[in-house]
Amino acid sequence: MIIVLGKNITEQEKINILERIKENGLTPHISEGIEKTLIGVVGDERILQAKPLDGMPGIEKIIQILKPFKLVSRDFKNENTVIEINGNKFGNGDFDFIAGPCSVESKEQIFSTAKFLSQKGIKYLRGGAFKPRTSPYSFQGLGVEGLEYMREAARLYDMSVISEVVDARDIELCYKFVEVFQVGARNMQNFNLLRELGNQSKPVLLKRGMSSTIKEWLMAAEYIMLKGNSNIILCERGIRTFEDYTRNTLDLSAVIAAKKETHLPVIVDPSHGTGRKDMILKMTLAAKVIGADGVMVEVHPEPEKALSDSAQSMNFKEFDNLITEVKKLKWPQ
Amino acid sequence: MIIVLGKNITEQEKINILERIKENGLTPHISEGIEKTLIGVVGDERILQAKPLDGMPGIEKIIQILKPFKLVSRDFKNENTVIEINGNKFGNGDFDFIAGPCSVESKEQIFSTAKFLSQKGIKYLRGGAFKPRTSPYSFQGLGVEGLEYMREAARLYDMSVISEVVDARDIELCYKFVEVFQVGARNMQNFNLLRELGNQSKPVLLKRGMSSTIKEWLMAAEYIMLKGNSNIILCERGIRTFEDYTRNTLDLSAVIAAKKETHLPVIVDPSHGTGRKDMILKMTLAAKVIGADGVMVEVHPEPEKALSDSAQSMNFKEFDNLITEVKKLKWPQ
Amino acid sequence: MIIVLGKNITEQEKINILERIKENGLTPHISEGIEKTLIGVVGDERILQAKPLDGMPGIEKIIQILKPFKLVSRDFKNENTVIEINGNKFGNGDFDFIAGPCSVESKEQIFSTAKFLSQKGIKYLRGGAFKPRTSPYSFQGLGVEGLEYMREAARLYDMSVISEVVDARDIELCYKFVEVFQVGARNMQNFNLLRELGNQSKPVLLKRGMSSTIKEWLMAAEYIMLKGNSNIILCERGIRTFEDYTRNTLDLSAVIAAKKETHLPVIVDPSHGTGRKDMILKMTLAAKVIGADGVMVEVHPEPEKALSDSAQSMNFKEFDNLITEVKKLKWPQ
Amino acid sequence: MIIVLGKNITEQEKINILERIKENGLTPHISEGIEKTLIGVVGDERILQAKPLDGMPGIEKIIQILKPFKLVSRDFKNENTVIEINGNKFGNGDFDFIAGPCSVESKEQIFSTAKFLSQKGIKYLRGGAFKPRTSPYSFQGLGVEGLEYMREAARLYDMSVISEVVDARDIELCYKFVEVFQVGARNMQNFNLLRELGNQSKPVLLKRGMSSTIKEWLMAAEYIMLKGNSNIILCERGIRTFEDYTRNTLDLSAVIAAKKETHLPVIVDPSHGTGRKDMILKMTLAAKVIGADGVMVEVHPEPEKALSDSAQSMNFKEFDNLITEVKKLKWPQ
Repeated sequence: MIIVLGKNITEQEKINILERIKENGLTPHISEGIEKTLIGVVGDERILQAKPLDGMPGIEKIIQILKPFKLVSRDFKNENTVIEINGNKFGNGDFDFIAGPCSVESKEQIFSTAKFLSQKGIKYLRGGAFKPRTSPYSFQGLGVEGLEYMREAARLYDMSVISEVVDARDIELCYKFVEVFQVGARNMQNFNLLRELGNQSKPVLLKRGMSSTIKEWLMAAEYIMLKGNSNIILCERGIRTFEDYTRNTLDLSAVIAAKKETHLPVIVDPSHGTGRKDMILKMTLAAKVIGADGVMVEVHPEPEKALSDSAQSMNFKEFDNLITEVKKLKWPQ
Repeated sequence: MIIVLGKNITEQEKINILERIKENGLTPHISEGIEKTLIGVVGDERILQAKPLDGMPGIEKIIQILKPFKLVSRDFKNENTVIEINGNKFGNGDFDFIAGPCSVESKEQIFSTAKFLSQKGIKYLRGGAFKPRTSPYSFQGLGVEGLEYMREAARLYDMSVISEVVDARDIELCYKFVEVFQVGARNMQNFNLLRELGNQSKPVLLKRGMSSTIKEWLMAAEYIMLKGNSNIILCERGIRTFEDYTRNTLDLSAVIAAKKETHLPVIVDPSHGTGRKDMILKMTLAAKVIGADGVMVEVHPEPEKALSDSAQSMNFKEFDNLITEVKKLKWPQ
Repeated sequence: MIIVLGKNITEQEKINILERIKENGLTPHISEGIEKTLIGVVGDERILQAKPLDGMPGIEKIIQILKPFKLVSRDFKNENTVIEINGNKFGNGDFDFIAGPCSVESKEQIFSTAKFLSQKGIKYLRGGAFKPRTSPYSFQGLGVEGLEYMREAARLYDMSVISEVVDARDIELCYKFVEVFQVGARNMQNFNLLRELGNQSKPVLLKRGMSSTIKEWLMAAEYIMLKGNSNIILCERGIRTFEDYTRNTLDLSAVIAAKKETHLPVIVDPSHGTGRKDMILKMTLAAKVIGADGVMVEVHPEPEKALSDSAQSMNFKEFDNLITEVKKLKWPQ
Repeated sequence: MIIVLGKNITEQEKINILERIKENGLTPHISEGIEKTLIGVVGDERILQAKPLDGMPGIEKIIQILKPFKLVSRDFKNENTVIEINGNKFGNGDFDFIAGPCSVESKEQIFSTAKFLSQKGIKYLRGGAFKPRTSPYSFQGLGVEGLEYMREAARLYDMSVISEVVDARDIELCYKFVEVFQVGARNMQNFNLLRELGNQSKPVLLKRGMSSTIKEWLMAAEYIMLKGNSNIILCERGIRTFEDYTRNTLDLSAVIAAKKETHLPVIVDPSHGTGRKDMILKMTLAAKVIGADGVMVEVHPEPEKALSDSAQSMNFKEFDNLITEVKKLKWPQ
């Protein structure tokens, strides 16, 4: 940590700052420049996250040098985390598909989808039962009923279930139905939810918030891991920018960054990331060549009748073409 | 609602679209242009939020004409909503102050703050007990203990308590301690929380999400109001942009917009909105002249020792100067 | 400047970095931390803007400590710059109005506007002759003819002319017609234009680019001032964000920042800043109380017939009301 | 075009609007809804770009239906534009490389780079002679001297030169030295420059502005094409967002969009798009699989001594590895 001192700092203010640093078991090094005086803080500056110095008189600016996250970082653990889900390994170098409808809408819908997907070799079934929707007048999901349908379908077709949990009170209930808990973009900083998922023995798929920096995203994962659950799959799903041609701006550099900074598997959601069915295939190919561990794609038997996200959902034929193309793309070689 | 049809739409696709519109009790009007064919949908298009048409083949684009919110709009209720809080009226044309520390840190801290504020005529005491923090290593708040201190201090100094609730499970508990529930920026789309606050008999202060559009913000308020609670105070607290001189970019036009579109009181949080103590006074003056109903300002007896947000908290002397200046500013006349 | 060294830096790489620093007449100070080694660079680090170190092997990150701008800063000159325009003083503590149509469209239009404005005591007439328009099919301005009309109208009604110059080749021509050269948002980083305006003896009104940081804006002013012209008026006109309720997001904190960091006058353009006529008055009041030196407002005899920006232009009656209201607002007292 | 009328519109205002539409040779269709009345405008609504209706009393909102661009669109010309550059074909389905230093710094530097690149089969040499730099204290480029070096090197190694022109006055001069004129992000809306390049007989590489929407980018290309020059290469180079891990956020969906909407070749600049050398390879692979026509990459013999952009420039070995990897990636098959 570097502390830049203000021009007009008094001797007493400087002493106060130095003492606060020492009180915390850290060592200050003063460096007098021509225009500015700096204090370099030696030691684990993360200690000061709990006792910040920001407001001390005489301080102009504080610059963090160390990364704010620890457990999720490659410095902490260099090898890739591989997550076992129902006997399958996620993050082991393969490119995996998670697929299914935005919302579970009926038994028929999810069964036909699961059947189709399992025939295509897909092992992970997604589907929303509790839907966070911008409008209270939009379809809000089937709730437990949706989870039950998914579970049954998954059992029948030997798939694993991934579904979003939006409320810590639902964790216990969901636990029985899902193999992977999903945390949606809107809940990326729902810290109670993160903490309680950190206590679970099942993996968590953590979507990036729609205006979250990469650092904030990794800090959210740190919340989960700090509680003991290190089975976290990161998912880039587009960020909010000024561009409105697409629903969000898919930030593939965040995937490269997350793979570099952390040991966790990282996937891409090209459905939400673009909001456009006609971009899903290309973005999936891109995800593969940049080293993502997979994609999560919205698939629906009849997208034109979907109660949510229909513009970004593929029908069976389109998804079939997607996996055919992706398989053709051999990378890395 | 206007539906723009794709160039290559088939006759059958067109028929399907027209039927879906009619099935929903709406009336389609076709208008053939030279380059595009449009279908105007007459009736309450919000019906289609529950049964969206987006994914139907042949549709190029759907354009909403009506505002997606209803109950919070001035069309629904034209007069300003005035909220009674402990016998005081919020939103009645006065410019009110909500003040207090970012976090409750100790009994002494909140008592001395409440004492000072009440002497200055401030009626609303803010203070965080459950703190949503980007880093798990940062101070997370005192929890119930913090609420107890606030309640006691408020009783002693005859103030009303405003505190953030981050988890629907805490509502019942918090209910005993607060006069106003605060929903923070990170929870603006925590819809379960909104729904349950909609069932409460106490007002809700709803902060705008850090990358939420004005529409999304008002839709979040709609969630609360739809459940029966119309005592909602909207709070603009800055949005996330590329600019990093300030912590956020305070969007005062959102205040003007919210006052125009809704009947709800709207306030400004210049502490979070700028992240800089040296901008709070000026932004408060600005809030007043554009017609905001008040401000929420972070005040701490010793900002240099604050466990959170110290760079944007005023000490007593600074806050004293703030209210003196704001009182001098007579507006509207 | 602080240089953060990479974990795996070699001894030779470190030596190379130290030598490069010394070659440039600067002094390096090494500080060994537990996780990171830093080099503090003492001396005027701006020297390294011309010979950057960024790409040297072994460097993880470089952190600038000093502000990149010099001449425009309050460190260079603390007193406010007051600009004389036709015998009037701009930036002397008054709140000034620059007004007129977006585009000069006809002799009648600009004469009637100038007449009206001068009757209201307005001294600065704006009007675009060379219009930068997103679409080539939009009205592109009258060119020299427009400047001639403005000049005549200004002479008749004793006003000063402010008009945009979009091409360095037009400076000489424009010089005869205007008292103040305007640089538009799209040209804020047209450095040749800035340099040549830096050689002129007339003031420059420099708009902030639509996605320019405050630092970049001040660096653009530095380009002008470095050539010798210190008569620069800064103009905040809204930045581009995700919000689409308004045309741009007016960033009033940038005004406070620019007033703090520089000695130059700073004004606000609430017409472009919001794109909405119904927000101009309130934003003008806000500009006044936060300490801006004035506003630039679009006024047109018949906004409904304007060839550009009609939704954000006031008619005479609306503008009359604006100045009446602004005069009522006494601030500072 | 759809015109949404305000609730309180008067009969006379409605008549005025209808007349203005008819005056312009267009046909209005009124559609009375329950809450809103709309006017659909039939005919080429682009006529109204020159005579906008926006400010007419009684209009609440105007919604464009047609795309604002014409000549660059696939509706105008469906087949891909293939550009001949020195006997090579750009945009014919191959994946091409444009490479070279950010700035030409010396004869030795550009000659060694050209030699290396030509050995690797690269046909297009980039290098900046006129550099737009945020700081006036940074290296501003060698000017004509730089162009001369590039020309000589290109002649010797049989390459084509691509260099940025920042001022319309330099076009004639540059014409002698370059095969392709580059328009940088900061000049994307320098309309005089675009118009004059539209009159040239050599191709133009048009970078997307750092906060330009896809529509605005294509409208900038429309400016060039309207003057007669249809040899335009579009280049996505990252947009400005809140994320600061990368220099910009590379928006690959814009490439897919531009390929879909226009007939022009589209390339990617992963150097500026990320600002990080360690992301260039992956982003190049991604560009290839999504269907870009190539990339423009910064290559320097000694990036650690580069006078600009050193953190995002590859050295020869790194670039050699890049093309080896890209060649291995067979796509489409």
